[in-house]
Amino acid sequence: MVRKGWNLGSLVCRVGSPGFYLKMLAQESIVSSPGKVILHGEHAVVHGKVALAVGLNLRTFLRIRCSKHGKVLLNLPNLGTCLNWEVATLQTLKTAFPADSDGPKSPSPEQIAALKVFVGIASESADTENLAVLAFLYLYLSIGAKYSRALPSLEIIVWSELPTGAGLGSSAAYNVSMAAALLMAHGAVGFPAQEEAESARWTAEELNLINTWAFQGEKIIHGNPSGVDNAVGTWGGALRYHAGKITSLERVPKLRILLTNTKVPRSTKLLVAGVKDKVLKFPNILNPVLSSIDAISQECERVLKEVNQNPSADCYTVLEELFDINQHHLNVLGVGHPSLDRLCQVTASHGLHSKLTGAGGGGCGITLLRPDVDPAVVEAAKQQLKACGYECWETHIGAPGISLHVFSALREEVQKVFQTFEKAEL
Amino acid sequence: MVRKGWNLGSLVCRVGSPGFYLKMLAQESIVSSPGKVILHGEHAVVHGKVALAVGLNLRTFLRIRCSKHGKVLLNLPNLGTCLNWEVATLQTLKTAFPADSDGPKSPSPEQIAALKVFVGIASESADTENLAVLAFLYLYLSIGAKYSRALPSLEIIVWSELPTGAGLGSSAAYNVSMAAALLMAHGAVGFPAQEEAESARWTAEELNLINTWAFQGEKIIHGNPSGVDNAVGTWGGALRYHAGKITSLERVPKLRILLTNTKVPRSTKLLVAGVKDKVLKFPNILNPVLSSIDAISQECERVLKEVNQNPSADCYTVLEELFDINQHHLNVLGVGHPSLDRLCQVTASHGLHSKLTGAGGGGCGITLLRPDVDPAVVEAAKQQLKACGYECWETHIGAPGISLHVFSALREEVQKVFQTFEKAEL
Repeated sequence: MVRKGWNLGSLVCRVGSPGFYLKMLAQESIVSSPGKVILHGEHAVVHGKVALAVGLNLRTFLRIRCSKHGKVLLNLPNLGTCLNWEVATLQTLKTAFPADSDGPKSPSPEQIAALKVFVGIASESADTENLAVLAFLYLYLSIGAKYSRALPSLEIIVWSELPTGAGLGSSAAYNVSMAAALLMAHGAVGFPAQEEAESARWTAEELNLINTWAFQGEKIIHGNPSGVDNAVGTWGGALRYHAGKITSLERVPKLRILLTNTKVPRSTKLLVAGVKDKVLKFPNILNPVLSSIDAISQECERVLKEVNQNPSADCYTVLEELFDINQHHLNVLGVGHPSLDRLCQVTASHGLHSKLTGAGGGGCGITLLRPDVDPAVVEAAKQQLKACGYECWETHIGAPGISLHVFSALREEVQKVFQTFEKAEL
Repeated sequence: MVRKGWNLGSLVCRVGSPGFYLKMLAQESIVSSPGKVILHGEHAVVHGKVALAVGLNLRTFLRIRCSKHGKVLLNLPNLGTCLNWEVATLQTLKTAFPADSDGPKSPSPEQIAALKVFVGIASESADTENLAVLAFLYLYLSIGAKYSRALPSLEIIVWSELPTGAGLGSSAAYNVSMAAALLMAHGAVGFPAQEEAESARWTAEELNLINTWAFQGEKIIHGNPSGVDNAVGTWGGALRYHAGKITSLERVPKLRILLTNTKVPRSTKLLVAGVKDKVLKFPNILNPVLSSIDAISQECERVLKEVNQNPSADCYTVLEELFDINQHHLNVLGVGHPSLDRLCQVTASHGLHSKLTGAGGGGCGITLLRPDVDPAVVEAAKQQLKACGYECWETHIGAPGISLHVFSALREEVQKVFQTFEKAEL
């Protein structure tokens, strides 16, 4: 039997809720996955120290629809890409993706090579757009092979609030959304119960499955990813990453932040190598700094718990102090940049505390906003940062992971994006 | 027998050299003592870590002359102070300063009280000028009591290149010069052999004596000084200070620096207390930073030796890196200041590396100048720093300690100062 579209047998949604019928009628679902920022521990994590990664409430939204036109449509408006394939054509690729009773396996070089030939990508050159297409095809074919005899006809639109290549986990948010949508379309994960009016989340077991598939998509895009980004995209909140082990922290508070992209490009690989060289050159000077960063991550973890249990002004003061100290440490590691110094100075001049996040050497910085911060102060800081040529988002961290949305509860801007593409562009 | 003026019996100078006769004819000597900067380890030293203090070639010059007018003249042109006392009047104070066969003892509260009454200072209020006068009187009376039955008639002029209250050891340079001059006038230290044409230095034993007396003068001014400043003023070069123990480093290279005074006033006491509070608040985060600073001091010590033995561009690169890292650490300790950030940014924009020196929170910064630095670059940096309202000196560290000078070999500016006061202002 060929199963197409939603496996109604697996639905665990409260039958009878307005969201349920709306989705069922349209045979469509909208999911979203958050970006990620490293709160503390970037670079130190490479040297065996603790890092804290948190969900960033800039999200990637994905709408998936079953169709009957025998085609697969992939629309990526952020990248200006809209592709479609005949399901029958895709079916010819299926030989490279045998059904496997085990869980997902890492993409093989042969699979990647076959997909590249199919898409028409020269072996080594693959830009963001091509990588996104490769990851989609990989997940579509692999999940299809595992859960259905025939491949489904689908329309998928992905739209993201996240900038790409800025170290904010945009590819993970894409892969997590894609894995969740495809697994849901095949009934491999259920149609989750709506705990809130606006959105719903999956069971721990289902989240594990989504995460594992998303991780394979990440491998297509990044080669050898740490798995932190897709874990944040899946679970959201805050994750502790230590010596390859990822642990989700319980009850993480949402913290308001200003996220700033200096737009200064950098090479993560070179920055990581630079830190390694510095640690080798000055081991007695640098190793204590890595230990101090480790202690910062642990102290931050403790304070996040306290913010939940007994929030006080002191908690936020400590979080600010940890930002300042770590920013100095990251400068010691040699991953600062004049653009980041400027970011810190501008925000400091408004009484706000910032640090770089991720690889450094440019890229993004985060600025903590206390709950009682004067909106005029935030606005003034934003204006000044924009005047520096930076891009700025007022958002929060500790955002939830992969979620299923009720269309009507989405922000108007997101609704409009999907309404623009209401009619399949085939 | 009353011994007045120079004890000719103790002269070890090469009799017959031009300098010898010039000094003997005029019965005058000019000595100078360097200022000090902390190269690395400020604040960390309070927590048991190594600090490196170096002689700063901004010097305090002192001319001492024997006279026969039965008066003691103390002229401090930098402070706009010129005082004189009848020797007979000073003699009445001598009861508070009994001759002692042992070495110098710490000034007693009674002695300080007696001097304050004599000078007319309200018990707790004492400005720079008053403290300088108190220290002089203390040294004059104590050294006089120990080495002579009667007090000598003297004319002393002290002129300094060092700003006061900037953490550059100006009081120590004053006390070391004063102790050396007075000990020389009483024959307690010899008239040193001139190893170079321009200046001469004392034997290790004599330097010890000078330092011990200077330390007493420092106690008058600072209450409970560490002894580092007077040790640098006496030995110059570079000193390692660790857990109260001061060790002179051998063969220290002269390093060119730009010394910049931000002129931002600060309280050393409050800054030290702030660091202590921070270490107590975040022991696991801050203690590694102190360890890292310790390792910086030790690495710097190693590189200074290498600069002497096998100078290379790499040595200077390491010294620059150590400056940068320590400056970040000092910011972590909370002793930075926007004025110092600005100093570092201005010099960095010219490819130069800076750190604060001393207490921080404003005060002074030092900028390393490589031997091959383009003079135009230094000039541009200086101009920009001056435009910030800062004061700037192009000088060097690793400067020699207390020295006896040949008048004709002094810089013209220094000669002119003393020529201005050629005639005693009595």
